[in-house]
Amino acid sequence: MSQAKRIVLAARPVGEPKPSDFRLEEHAIPTPGAGEVLLRTIWLSLDPYMRGRMSDGPSYAQPVPVGGVMEAGTVCEVVASNNPGFKAGDIVLARAGWQTHAISDGKGLAKVDPKLAPISTAVGVLGMPGMTAYTGLLDIGQPKPGETVVVAAASGAVGSAVGQIAKIKGARAIGIAGGKDKCDYVKNEFGFDDCLDHRDPDLAAKLKAACPKGIDVYFENVGGPVFEAVFPLFNAFARMPVCGLIAHYNDTQSVAPKWAGALMRNVLTKRLTIRGFIVSDFASRHGDFLKDMSAWVRDGKVKYKEHVTEGLENAPDAFMGLLKGANFGKQLVRVGPDKA
Amino acid sequence: MSQAKRIVLAARPVGEPKPSDFRLEEHAIPTPGAGEVLLRTIWLSLDPYMRGRMSDGPSYAQPVPVGGVMEAGTVCEVVASNNPGFKAGDIVLARAGWQTHAISDGKGLAKVDPKLAPISTAVGVLGMPGMTAYTGLLDIGQPKPGETVVVAAASGAVGSAVGQIAKIKGARAIGIAGGKDKCDYVKNEFGFDDCLDHRDPDLAAKLKAACPKGIDVYFENVGGPVFEAVFPLFNAFARMPVCGLIAHYNDTQSVAPKWAGALMRNVLTKRLTIRGFIVSDFASRHGDFLKDMSAWVRDGKVKYKEHVTEGLENAPDAFMGLLKGANFGKQLVRVGPDKA
Repeated sequence: MSQAKRIVLAARPVGEPKPSDFRLEEHAIPTPGAGEVLLRTIWLSLDPYMRGRMSDGPSYAQPVPVGGVMEAGTVCEVVASNNPGFKAGDIVLARAGWQTHAISDGKGLAKVDPKLAPISTAVGVLGMPGMTAYTGLLDIGQPKPGETVVVAAASGAVGSAVGQIAKIKGARAIGIAGGKDKCDYVKNEFGFDDCLDHRDPDLAAKLKAACPKGIDVYFENVGGPVFEAVFPLFNAFARMPVCGLIAHYNDTQSVAPKWAGALMRNVLTKRLTIRGFIVSDFASRHGDFLKDMSAWVRDGKVKYKEHVTEGLENAPDAFMGLLKGANFGKQLVRVGPDKA
Repeated sequence: MSQAKRIVLAARPVGEPKPSDFRLEEHAIPTPGAGEVLLRTIWLSLDPYMRGRMSDGPSYAQPVPVGGVMEAGTVCEVVASNNPGFKAGDIVLARAGWQTHAISDGKGLAKVDPKLAPISTAVGVLGMPGMTAYTGLLDIGQPKPGETVVVAAASGAVGSAVGQIAKIKGARAIGIAGGKDKCDYVKNEFGFDDCLDHRDPDLAAKLKAACPKGIDVYFENVGGPVFEAVFPLFNAFARMPVCGLIAHYNDTQSVAPKWAGALMRNVLTKRLTIRGFIVSDFASRHGDFLKDMSAWVRDGKVKYKEHVTEGLENAPDAFMGLLKGANFGKQLVRVGPDKA
């Protein structure tokens, strides 16, 4: 590969992103300056939060500028280094974005040990999605043995970890996912107690039947009809960590949801806790997370599933699919081979 | 007084309670049995939560049955005792309800020391309303020096304590109250940094001006238009303890509020915490509360204002007024003299 490629934000999407909102660009492979390293991307992580970065509404992060490279966490190889902290051949976790090559001054890079686990897990179960599940569930949700934990997108990177950690902590785990194949996988491979199809018109009734003792923790990463089904089932003192609302990311206007009139009354009478978070709010927990999660993965207590799309040029399609639940497992793009 | 009086729930109110929802009954003063005491009520506390007990919707407490004595916290004198734990003349905090006399087996009674503070404070600043303010603000709101705390019903029993404790903790306190007299009192006597009139059609703009650095803690005890004005001003990581929704207690149907479509998005992007509570959730903090609050009251750091209605028969009017904000300070009913 003599040329580098990148995907930039061509236009801010209105509603659902479409192919013309992205643009593939080719350019010369850049040369690292003093103190810099040249990175070659191996794995690109696609995650729902990126939809937020494409819009310029108020949020916890700056949006990607139009014409700018789409942001992303990546696993990269250092191919040239003028930085004493890194040498060619090092595998690093980076935020190199949707591109084959990137220059870094070394700040924010974290070395990945390929002997510990497949390097793709650095952007999956041992990375941001895994830590989102770990901190949101344990620090906010705080499930106790015998309690019931519900999570949607249960075959995905975050949801699958949430349910498996809930089981480790002695709680019941009920997943919600799209379609029979995903639901079967969530039950049989991830070991959830049950998994329901969010497309089922009887979701609310089936969720009630699957949660005979009510819901103590709802890990909110989707919003929409799933929350509507969950809301009436909350027990007193239920906790709701909120880390995503994928069902609403393409909304072009705010519509008052069905639960709106009753929400605050239920917050009061059931003494609910609703708390939004992003993973960086719990940066101090990174050591605990890595220690626990790598042990659980090693011991087979937490399994993970990856959905690999080949080639950077297919990242936009993969991302548009992710927002519709077309992926089955953690969505990755293989941008380059493990060894160049 | 040779006869005892009590006020019972005559009918469940639809919307706003009306006089015919209450009934005054006379009966013989009861006689305590073995192990029991006879209580004579001196102070009856009226509080917004009682509206909830008049309805039979789902809540954290059982409703008052139709025909049953209205529930309430009271300060009573023991007038006869067959219980070795109490003697005639003892002053006790009780839940004797809206009546002049009650029988108790002694469970749940707490002795009140008349030398420490006026005995009425046992149902006010040193009682349930004070502890609601203390635990909701400190355990959930957790104001830090320089942060901005907003509370409505700021001249009332809970709101006045919330703002004064916020000031003790180094935060700015902005109150909201009904009318100029209450607002002046909240600023001049309770020492809030500012107080706005909730009837002001420009409330939202004035609140924004009064909170130039945004809102870090909103102590929610009213709901309605005040929350609508507060909601856009939340800072990242803002906390909202929810202990009451007096603006909605008479609602006969759920109406989706203006903020509904944007609530969860703001919970996520601003990492808000919304948590409902009632004071008994923090029973373990009672010792801390009494120690701190009695010192603050003694040192003049926390002041309180009482609104006294004379005579049990006027309790329904006083309660209906309370729901409309007609009281100015903690609403009490003097049911009997300090000494019979």
